[in-house]
Amino acid sequence: MGRVVVDVMPKPEILDPQGKAVAGALPRLGFGEFVSVRQGKRFELEVAGPVTPEVLAAAARAAEQVLSNPVIEDVVRVADLDAVGDAVPAEVAR
Amino acid sequence: MGRVVVDVMPKPEILDPQGKAVAGALPRLGFGEFVSVRQGKRFELEVAGPVTPEVLAAAARAAEQVLSNPVIEDVVRVADLDAVGDAVPAEVAR
Repeated sequence: MGRVVVDVMPKPEILDPQGKAVAGALPRLGFGEFVSVRQGKRFELEVAGPVTPEVLAAAARAAEQVLSNPVIEDVVRVADLDAVGDAVPAEVAR
Repeated sequence: MGRVVVDVMPKPEILDPQGKAVAGALPRLGFGEFVSVRQGKRFELEVAGPVTPEVLAAAARAAEQVLSNPVIEDVVRVADLDAVGDAVPAEVAR
């Protein structure tokens, strides 16, 4: 059972009201170090077998054709989730 | 100018209607290899200086307190965007 992670972000030139709202809230909540925020989407696609190059290629096509709107969004990551090992580092976790 | 990436996903036991909708659409559009989809959020937080351990720790706190709802979501990644080098591999890109 493999998983592919696909990340999609609004293009840099596209206004991002959700990100702006978060960026406005952070300083009021004590997080003054962050000067700008962009908000996008993360998808985890599960396949029955292992994540082969063919699965990654299919995920990249799905990312462009289904998971993102190419007019306003960029696909910024297509990867085997087990290979990239996303994590919250222990030293920064609560 | 550093950037921290924060990824947030619905907890496994939480129903994810957006992911279910995508999972239902993919086979109809020719992507039958994906058996399940979960949809979450990706944030890119920009700081004026470099991404220090203090910045990462602040981002982790912001992720728990502002960017996610701990009742229904997990923070699955807090990382220096330049260090992790998210990308769409050339061999899977169009």
